[in-house]
Amino acid sequence: MKKVAVIMGSDSDFPVVKDAVCELKKYGVPVECRVMSAHRTPELASQFATNAKADGFGVIICAAGMAAHLAGVIAGHTTLPVIGIPIKSSTLDGLDALLATVMMPSGIPVATVAINGAKNAAVLAIQMLALSDEELSKKLEQAKLDMIEGVKAKNEALQEKVAEL
Amino acid sequence: MKKVAVIMGSDSDFPVVKDAVCELKKYGVPVECRVMSAHRTPELASQFATNAKADGFGVIICAAGMAAHLAGVIAGHTTLPVIGIPIKSSTLDGLDALLATVMMPSGIPVATVAINGAKNAAVLAIQMLALSDEELSKKLEQAKLDMIEGVKAKNEALQEKVAEL
Amino acid sequence: MKKVAVIMGSDSDFPVVKDAVCELKKYGVPVECRVMSAHRTPELASQFATNAKADGFGVIICAAGMAAHLAGVIAGHTTLPVIGIPIKSSTLDGLDALLATVMMPSGIPVATVAINGAKNAAVLAIQMLALSDEELSKKLEQAKLDMIEGVKAKNEALQEKVAEL
Amino acid sequence: MKKVAVIMGSDSDFPVVKDAVCELKKYGVPVECRVMSAHRTPELASQFATNAKADGFGVIICAAGMAAHLAGVIAGHTTLPVIGIPIKSSTLDGLDALLATVMMPSGIPVATVAINGAKNAAVLAIQMLALSDEELSKKLEQAKLDMIEGVKAKNEALQEKVAEL
Amino acid sequence: MKKVAVIMGSDSDFPVVKDAVCELKKYGVPVECRVMSAHRTPELASQFATNAKADGFGVIICAAGMAAHLAGVIAGHTTLPVIGIPIKSSTLDGLDALLATVMMPSGIPVATVAINGAKNAAVLAIQMLALSDEELSKKLEQAKLDMIEGVKAKNEALQEKVAEL
Amino acid sequence: MKKVAVIMGSDSDFPVVKDAVCELKKYGVPVECRVMSAHRTPELASQFATNAKADGFGVIICAAGMAAHLAGVIAGHTTLPVIGIPIKSSTLDGLDALLATVMMPSGIPVATVAINGAKNAAVLAIQMLALSDEELSKKLEQAKLDMIEGVKAKNEALQEKVAEL
Amino acid sequence: MKKVAVIMGSDSDFPVVKDAVCELKKYGVPVECRVMSAHRTPELASQFATNAKADGFGVIICAAGMAAHLAGVIAGHTTLPVIGIPIKSSTLDGLDALLATVMMPSGIPVATVAINGAKNAAVLAIQMLALSDEELSKKLEQAKLDMIEGVKAKNEALQEKVAEL
Amino acid sequence: MKKVAVIMGSDSDFPVVKDAVCELKKYGVPVECRVMSAHRTPELASQFATNAKADGFGVIICAAGMAAHLAGVIAGHTTLPVIGIPIKSSTLDGLDALLATVMMPSGIPVATVAINGAKNAAVLAIQMLALSDEELSKKLEQAKLDMIEGVKAKNEALQEKVAEL
Repeated sequence: MKKVAVIMGSDSDFPVVKDAVCELKKYGVPVECRVMSAHRTPELASQFATNAKADGFGVIICAAGMAAHLAGVIAGHTTLPVIGIPIKSSTLDGLDALLATVMMPSGIPVATVAINGAKNAAVLAIQMLALSDEELSKKLEQAKLDMIEGVKAKNEALQEKVAEL
Repeated sequence: MKKVAVIMGSDSDFPVVKDAVCELKKYGVPVECRVMSAHRTPELASQFATNAKADGFGVIICAAGMAAHLAGVIAGHTTLPVIGIPIKSSTLDGLDALLATVMMPSGIPVATVAINGAKNAAVLAIQMLALSDEELSKKLEQAKLDMIEGVKAKNEALQEKVAEL
Repeated sequence: MKKVAVIMGSDSDFPVVKDAVCELKKYGVPVECRVMSAHRTPELASQFATNAKADGFGVIICAAGMAAHLAGVIAGHTTLPVIGIPIKSSTLDGLDALLATVMMPSGIPVATVAINGAKNAAVLAIQMLALSDEELSKKLEQAKLDMIEGVKAKNEALQEKVAEL
Repeated sequence: MKKVAVIMGSDSDFPVVKDAVCELKKYGVPVECRVMSAHRTPELASQFATNAKADGFGVIICAAGMAAHLAGVIAGHTTLPVIGIPIKSSTLDGLDALLATVMMPSGIPVATVAINGAKNAAVLAIQMLALSDEELSKKLEQAKLDMIEGVKAKNEALQEKVAEL
Repeated sequence: MKKVAVIMGSDSDFPVVKDAVCELKKYGVPVECRVMSAHRTPELASQFATNAKADGFGVIICAAGMAAHLAGVIAGHTTLPVIGIPIKSSTLDGLDALLATVMMPSGIPVATVAINGAKNAAVLAIQMLALSDEELSKKLEQAKLDMIEGVKAKNEALQEKVAEL
Repeated sequence: MKKVAVIMGSDSDFPVVKDAVCELKKYGVPVECRVMSAHRTPELASQFATNAKADGFGVIICAAGMAAHLAGVIAGHTTLPVIGIPIKSSTLDGLDALLATVMMPSGIPVATVAINGAKNAAVLAIQMLALSDEELSKKLEQAKLDMIEGVKAKNEALQEKVAEL
Repeated sequence: MKKVAVIMGSDSDFPVVKDAVCELKKYGVPVECRVMSAHRTPELASQFATNAKADGFGVIICAAGMAAHLAGVIAGHTTLPVIGIPIKSSTLDGLDALLATVMMPSGIPVATVAINGAKNAAVLAIQMLALSDEELSKKLEQAKLDMIEGVKAKNEALQEKVAEL
Repeated sequence: MKKVAVIMGSDSDFPVVKDAVCELKKYGVPVECRVMSAHRTPELASQFATNAKADGFGVIICAAGMAAHLAGVIAGHTTLPVIGIPIKSSTLDGLDALLATVMMPSGIPVATVAINGAKNAAVLAIQMLALSDEELSKKLEQAKLDMIEGVKAKNEALQEKVAEL
């Protein structure tokens, strides 16, 4: 199976980003994790992205905050789908990272998920890989059924809280 | 090859959305186009999404403006990757559609592109399909080379304009 | 009397939403409470909304955060008035939920109240039911008088604090 | 049948607001229209709102732009449900009117619709009146069916445009 | 000397608003303080404003949060200058209150100060009264000189902190 | 009577600002008009402000766009009340000018009116002068009555338009 | 004298950017102009930036819209000062480009000017070069004096317009 | 070597601003630090800026929050490059300070860095001075190499955390 790369602009993003890693592992998708900066280590970033397909990666997930350029820069060097996670930092509530990630110019898309939406980045990567992997696809369908049961259980639990009001 | 669905919440979105259709056709990707509303025709939308995988679709592109729920609702009914195009409407410059498309809850991602970013939605869909289609992948690489030549040509042309200043 | 449904996208919304339930109970309005997600349990949501009128509901209050689609989706399946409470989540201060709730397309309104405005959602539902229930209407008028007394009492109390400055 | 009042802060709002009047007339709902300002004619506004219920009104729709106080002020004087239409004016794209209309304090709700969402304000008013008027309710259900047919027809028309690409 | 009224929409605003009261007292300006709501006690508010000039008030300071209508409503009932303090509440960081206070329609100004800018509201009121009160004017000039000394002292203190770096 | 100064950061602001001049003239208030920039002619600005009171001015109205510093800088040099008009320029819809004008630090208020709210700046200045000028005060009260008649006339005219729908 | 590079992400930015080129030429500063994209031609961009100092450049001005990464990417490859011009594009009024340009992470600054502030980018570059070039510095001082005369002339012209009101 | 001035509008900004001072000291750049306010001590500010060049300063860094006028006002009095640090204060997350700092009118640039971006302001100042100081330039290049090593070390450390998931 193709690997998924999970790249972050700073190791301070890891507490958010690890949800993506965990989700990928839960599905048995091979994952590699890197700290890499579009601004501090641009050569590393461009080399990584240029070689990513040949190195066996299928999808690249990039997490960055503020003027979040990482996903866009990686996308400039590869034809693999690139998923961007805008990270909320100490000001502006992640709006800066969201706009800097999603508003890509024509020709170079970044598949952007919600601010701090690390788990969804992983799910999206798995959906992409599942296009040619029926087993993964089945796991996604099962997860959807599990979510339904989860919501139903929460609904049950809610009834007790409501009765106490 | 799997088909790509291009769905829009209103036919008034077509002038923007058609760039996605054209791009997909350029790559020889089979595409089907629908007007379908999360609010006006919810049954049609849920049926379409529920059956999309069995009907041979690989990726679903959804374009909607304002409280843009279409992509999210479609994503709720399928495990296929769903791409959202936030459409700019007459107020708020598309910010409403962007937030309503991208800020999805955990478990149900929408791969969001830029406001009115129809061409990029198509490129992203092609990148996903190219994960298991080397021919498509080669076309994407060629397009990247063509973009470089395009920028170089524009750079040449610019020199003349600068000389005239 | 017709029932009011209070639906929330996640049980984590309950600490905010319970103010709506309490207010409805205070007026003796029968209320039912559900966790239900436009994205995780779309079938449950559409079934609930489709049957709501026949099941004796008069008004449906929907609370959701982020890309808050719940109210809009419910409104797509019923002709009952739907009230939306945008819930503030961990980023963007509820602006995402507000826009995703209020900016509905033509034909499918959602009666939107303030971010986290759960009590007001209940008052609004009661005002709607009171259109054909003079007793409820009287209670609302009494509550308005009580509010005036409440403000007057606070004004009295304020005078002491001011005197201490 | 109870009447619906459609009030606007300035006659310059009429080109937007008239969609509400037309929609109400289409359903045979008696409607009265007023120019009335929370700031320029506060006495008129408070008298109107105070007497609205006794004067046979069931719902009051208020449209205003900028620091849109009209709906809130009317709501302060009545227990009837008040619907607010934030009007987009020459700056800020209607965001000022939206926030000034929707962010009401506890106890005094305004049922807010989208910026310039006049037709939806009318539909919402009709939904409220239909709670005790089965004939109106049937018309709303028919309109929902008509919307579905409308979308289907637009979908048909779209296929031709797509074929021409 | 004319009195200054300091009105707030809720007694929860007092911790912010009291800075205005203190500043006015420091200058010996007679001040009266009220809790009064544009929505909960509209009659009190309109009576107060209508009589304010005859009751010996010269300036009215109004503090309110969210859809902050208080200043605008008061301004609608008087020709006295009205100063608005937008109060930051639990969401949107005070932007809602700022826009609802400052974006007044033509003919009815509200002199708006910064979000939570209670002290400045008082200074502004004093500046207005000082137009016909040379003694107050002198006090304002002295305060300006004191501010300069204050900044100089802070600059001195800073040098020590810098030396420690 | 004290004079009112109307200052603008650029002569391109005059089409907006002239409404302030006209309104002041309508009330017979002596007005002087200047182009003066906080950034391009800082010495002129500080001299003007420093001498304004001695030169017979009572109120200073300042209009500026973008990083609108003019009102704040003038306020730093005088104890006269300073009114700020944020001017909408080619980007950001005047939000930049609004925040740069209104968010003044403690001790130096700027009485801010709506974006492009030139007429209201004049009315506010007149209200300030009227604190010690009963004749001006009477004119303001008359204008308030005229506004009521104006709204009533517009309401009459509206009835015809509504009848035609 | 060191050269200034003026780089733009797209030739469609030239109508804005040319003001920077003209200003630099007016001061006799050697300037080179390029179209170069952080996303479409990343190799060209990194090569250019890596060699810029050795190639005789002193300052690099970068103009880009949307998720404006160009200035940040260039800054990642050089220790020369990099000036960013956020370009307003068809949505969001340039706010996306502003945030994507200015919110750079620690260690890699971009000297950001106003949205579409091309002339100011040039002036800033000249100010930097003038730190070691007294002749340039004198020209800047002369320009400041010229600006004062320009404002004075506009003030004169204004007096006539005011007289006509 | 020319000195760098680090000015702040209030000593409460020092906890943020000291990062700039430390960075400058690390590079051996002579630095002077001042509290100085565009509004409270305008004369001090204009004198300082007017004499800055003659007093041996090469670059002026200005930090201010809210309606952050300090950098703009300083820039109005000097031809030295002025760097602005927008400071986040208690509301609006620094957006007010960012816009008030960066949106300067034509002719008077302020080189703006990120909200609270004090270290980057220092780096930018050093880059400017390094244009004519090869030793400083070498230090900047070394710092860039050190950053790469820092990122690599963090990447190593990350691998352990990932292995633990």
